[in-house]
Amino acid sequence: MYPLSEIGGLNLAARGLEIPTDQIFNPRATCLLDGICRVNGCTGSFVSANGLIITNHHCAYGAIQSASTTEHDYLANGFQAQTYNQEISATGYTVRITEAYSDISDKVLSAVTPSMSFLERTKAIERRRKELEKEAETNHAGMRAEVAEMFAGKTYVLFLYTYLKDVRLVFAPPASVGNFGGEVDNWEWPRHTGDFSFMRAYTAPDGSSADYSTNNVPYKPKRFIQVASQGADEGDFVFILGYPGRTARHKTASFLDYEEQIRLPYIARLYAWQIATLEAAGKDDRAVALKLASQIRSLANVEKRARGQLKGLDRAAIATMRKRQEAELQKFIDSDPARQAKYGTTLKEIDAVYKELTQSSDFELNIENLQSASRTLAIAFTLVDAAHERIKEDLEREAAYMDRNFDQTAKTLQLTVQDLHVPVDKIILTGMLERLAKVPGAVQLPALSGLINDADSVAPKASALLEHTRLNDWAFVEKCLKMTPFELVESQEPVLKLMTALYPTYLKLRQRGKERAGQLDKSYGELVEVKQQFMSQSFIPDANATLRMTFGRIRSYSPEDGVIKTPITTLKGVIDKTTGEDPFITPQRIRDLYAAKDFGPFVHKKLGQVPVAILYDTDTTGGNSGSPVLNARGQLVGVNFDRAFEATINDFAWNASYSRSIGVDIRYCLWITGKVYGAEHLLKEMGVSQ
Amino acid sequence: MYPLSEIGGLNLAARGLEIPTDQIFNPRATCLLDGICRVNGCTGSFVSANGLIITNHHCAYGAIQSASTTEHDYLANGFQAQTYNQEISATGYTVRITEAYSDISDKVLSAVTPSMSFLERTKAIERRRKELEKEAETNHAGMRAEVAEMFAGKTYVLFLYTYLKDVRLVFAPPASVGNFGGEVDNWEWPRHTGDFSFMRAYTAPDGSSADYSTNNVPYKPKRFIQVASQGADEGDFVFILGYPGRTARHKTASFLDYEEQIRLPYIARLYAWQIATLEAAGKDDRAVALKLASQIRSLANVEKRARGQLKGLDRAAIATMRKRQEAELQKFIDSDPARQAKYGTTLKEIDAVYKELTQSSDFELNIENLQSASRTLAIAFTLVDAAHERIKEDLEREAAYMDRNFDQTAKTLQLTVQDLHVPVDKIILTGMLERLAKVPGAVQLPALSGLINDADSVAPKASALLEHTRLNDWAFVEKCLKMTPFELVESQEPVLKLMTALYPTYLKLRQRGKERAGQLDKSYGELVEVKQQFMSQSFIPDANATLRMTFGRIRSYSPEDGVIKTPITTLKGVIDKTTGEDPFITPQRIRDLYAAKDFGPFVHKKLGQVPVAILYDTDTTGGNSGSPVLNARGQLVGVNFDRAFEATINDFAWNASYSRSIGVDIRYCLWITGKVYGAEHLLKEMGVSQ
Repeated sequence: MYPLSEIGGLNLAARGLEIPTDQIFNPRATCLLDGICRVNGCTGSFVSANGLIITNHHCAYGAIQSASTTEHDYLANGFQAQTYNQEISATGYTVRITEAYSDISDKVLSAVTPSMSFLERTKAIERRRKELEKEAETNHAGMRAEVAEMFAGKTYVLFLYTYLKDVRLVFAPPASVGNFGGEVDNWEWPRHTGDFSFMRAYTAPDGSSADYSTNNVPYKPKRFIQVASQGADEGDFVFILGYPGRTARHKTASFLDYEEQIRLPYIARLYAWQIATLEAAGKDDRAVALKLASQIRSLANVEKRARGQLKGLDRAAIATMRKRQEAELQKFIDSDPARQAKYGTTLKEIDAVYKELTQSSDFELNIENLQSASRTLAIAFTLVDAAHERIKEDLEREAAYMDRNFDQTAKTLQLTVQDLHVPVDKIILTGMLERLAKVPGAVQLPALSGLINDADSVAPKASALLEHTRLNDWAFVEKCLKMTPFELVESQEPVLKLMTALYPTYLKLRQRGKERAGQLDKSYGELVEVKQQFMSQSFIPDANATLRMTFGRIRSYSPEDGVIKTPITTLKGVIDKTTGEDPFITPQRIRDLYAAKDFGPFVHKKLGQVPVAILYDTDTTGGNSGSPVLNARGQLVGVNFDRAFEATINDFAWNASYSRSIGVDIRYCLWITGKVYGAEHLLKEMGVSQ
Repeated sequence: MYPLSEIGGLNLAARGLEIPTDQIFNPRATCLLDGICRVNGCTGSFVSANGLIITNHHCAYGAIQSASTTEHDYLANGFQAQTYNQEISATGYTVRITEAYSDISDKVLSAVTPSMSFLERTKAIERRRKELEKEAETNHAGMRAEVAEMFAGKTYVLFLYTYLKDVRLVFAPPASVGNFGGEVDNWEWPRHTGDFSFMRAYTAPDGSSADYSTNNVPYKPKRFIQVASQGADEGDFVFILGYPGRTARHKTASFLDYEEQIRLPYIARLYAWQIATLEAAGKDDRAVALKLASQIRSLANVEKRARGQLKGLDRAAIATMRKRQEAELQKFIDSDPARQAKYGTTLKEIDAVYKELTQSSDFELNIENLQSASRTLAIAFTLVDAAHERIKEDLEREAAYMDRNFDQTAKTLQLTVQDLHVPVDKIILTGMLERLAKVPGAVQLPALSGLINDADSVAPKASALLEHTRLNDWAFVEKCLKMTPFELVESQEPVLKLMTALYPTYLKLRQRGKERAGQLDKSYGELVEVKQQFMSQSFIPDANATLRMTFGRIRSYSPEDGVIKTPITTLKGVIDKTTGEDPFITPQRIRDLYAAKDFGPFVHKKLGQVPVAILYDTDTTGGNSGSPVLNARGQLVGVNFDRAFEATINDFAWNASYSRSIGVDIRYCLWITGKVYGAEHLLKEMGVSQ
């Protein structure tokens, strides 16, 4: 996943690219990059001059879910706006466009002095980053500035973004198409999911970023991506532009051990239990199911990925391999006295952090997940945290509570409040407290002791705590967001009282986290230096949610001896998989058009079918959801949405034989949108003729 | 699956065969056929001049299991005889070699007169078949004669066989190789099972068939099959000679409905329960597990096949398709008055039989399975049945009790007695009786009423019934085989008393079965006639356990959109699948040789691996187990042992896109035998150099 500054040196023409790289990225002129945006945690592409965005159905899921009621169930039935007026505001959504960036490592690291403790180091870097962001925003009115860490403790880049705050839902297929195969097929290939939706960004009439208003007008992107309605074929060169989230290719074997032995198994178990609990609660009540749908989906996604990663780490013995590499690196370090003096203990220092993390994991993982698993406690934590942070000077605050971010934090909180279902949260809270009752150190906490010191009474106590909570009422929560810590206690909300009592524990964990980050930043900085000396080459930094480019080909793979998975699935496969039972339901109209072979121009000639999904060996990770899959001429041939099961360990190591990403084929998007649901105006807007 | 008389007209040279067809089949000279034999229900190939036979591990399973004790666990550790003396007698095994055959339809059907009832018709044909068999055996001393029905009610062929009764176990890999993947992989591709064994047939010193004796000498086959140690490759022409059991390609849609809706679901449920019960019983006791292993395996095999067939029947909508064909056929019949007069009601008559069968299925299936699921009752049934049949004139008896067959019946019974485990049979009997307690008509049977009229006491009563049974004692059972019905009752064995009381019910079912067979024989005879007129072509008869030839190519297939299964698996796949837990254990020596790449000459050049299993689109069914897979020059390249899951519906309809059979690659057999277990004398005997 190459930072854009690197792509000039990749010789992409030799690999199949048919346009000059400066058409992809050019700081001095409009280029393809200007057609790419970030849609909350996902990536999107502008596909018209009027701010029309194509992204994944699962990226627009929150917006579709929020707009759905039992009367207008857009999740179940799909949604389509015929005019701008009919487009629905996507609460909590923002669209971010990268405008410029520059390396500011020196400016950031000049805040650090050798005598600083690790905690002081982290805090100094954090403060400097915030200062630089503020300064940049002052110099570039209307833009957002963000400093991204490229190599931990070593390289920092300042990005300037336009943030659009009025985002609307334009078109979504029914979930039976957009999430066909559901959790059964998630992280799997062959895939038959029409995981796409259309949204639109709006601005004030003068083109500036503005909150939702009926006076707003469609955003005019500097450049939009051309849709290639003829699609792509096996072997074709493709590339992806997007905002991949986090990878851990440069982390040590001790980190992998911690993931493999501690964190991933914990998450897999905990989330599986949460999912089962939430699913049971929504089983016979569609309104509750709608409330919980988004949360279940994101839990299930992480749970299955965790299982895939555990399987992959074990199968590919990645930790063992990395241990061997580190042993060789240590030999190299020890072979030279000067190097030995500078880097001799680097690996040991990193290992010590993960060892300490492992030892305290039972307590920390359960305490942290207490306030994320229980949505009521999650809301309470944000309120108490905000109250304590907001009384500080702006630059001293945690980023979420700085003036420039607080609106967004409030919006996100509002979504959590809307989706809170207290009856199921009682069960979750009970389960989390019962876990904590068995954790050394937890019963000793005065804040928890009364709740968990008697195993038999945890459930009634948790239930009583939430019985009359007002944290499911946005009006009340919005008021709380403006309160001081003292006022929160005075509000007589029992959950806020509990969280106030627990808050010092969370503060201690936060401080411990910063100490560890300080240590790791320093040590990983050294590690990258000495590894580059050892291997006599420079590295591509781990993904960090900034713009990256990755390329490859549409390509089959063999997950096991005797099996080849081919890289283009078809509508026939959708019909074959259709059982009529969730998640394998297919709308009647699709089945009719299939039977009539009414494919329009959106047919794969050799396969004689509408292609549904494509598989390619580019390097992606979470955050690449919704990324455009572009052909050699920079035209849109698909929308990236997932990886194959074997590729879940991509986050730890890429491999040509099993790393495969999955996109929905543009021809399926166009066929569903135009042919099946008759939204021909959108095809026209994109310049596609049926 | 072509009868041998047909292969001259198939133009096999154009399809890839490189030898004249009269080298395969020639009534006037030795040919490949003389190298093929039937080994109990399986097929085998002679691979040396001294009667060495290669067949499947699962075909020799009973012999390996019988020879195994907890001290000498040949099932777990494998077996190898270094000399003739060390070969172990395979109790209950016979080897059958086809010597000649001729069409005798006229002779058989001349026993039938138009005025006969269906029951009389069946009995007349049965009797005539027995007469003709006896006559043929008188004319050909030392041979077995058997009349096979080719087309039901229409064509009959007399086969003359040599039966060899002294069969011995020569070599078996451990079950971890011979049954690698176990029930998980059964009916699946990709497959990594080394499902082969070597046995040897013996005769009296004068070459005549004889029971086991130390004086016996290895059988000298007229011809043996040459082993092609270089194996075969994707796309190669292959053909199979063997004894496929039963197919139902010419049966009606009403038969398929009965199978799909009644019989297969019943078998799948019943067997799944039996398997679970037997597995639980053997879980902590290897001696019990060994006793039950063979029964579990055959139940599991049928249970999974039933599931595959149900899935396939549903997916391919075979019954619907056949209904459509029958509607067209009916139109053709009705379009001509003469035809209408002769065949107008044929389809309706067949449908009526299956309708009646469906209506009585609840009672009949449960009563029939009572005496097969409970092994004690199965033994009791054979004894009571034998006592009643043996007092009849020889030709009037059921075939199993005729003098010429009774020895074999006794041998089979002995195996059942040896494997009877009374504690588990109590649970099985209880379960079957509990099923019957809910079946209309069963509680009314005087023989059962006392056992099942009170739901709560079924278990103690069933338990008491078996508590002191002597039917697990071969000495007692052998004595019983010579008793009259009256003496059996006098023996005071409670299970024999129960079976004597139930016997009239079984006799009624047998008579009802013969009436139905009479009706179906007549009607299916008509159906074949009129179908041949309709389609202006003749048909290949359904498989009926007589010698057939089938051909095709080593070939991949696509079980679903986006997946291709390639046709040659490798040792690497064995290692990849190995988890160290049953059924995925691989002996250390194999793992060592794999790591050392010590493949000898048994390597697939392009894959760089020892090939393990091959996949081909020839048409096979049960009974083809152990069949030689022969190359274009008639040399052995594999041993057939299974079909892919999608191909389980082969029994109802063959299809080029999903019908695939599975064989173990000869190179894996040779590598395991020679390289891994050092039985180089066997490779030498087959003329293979390492």
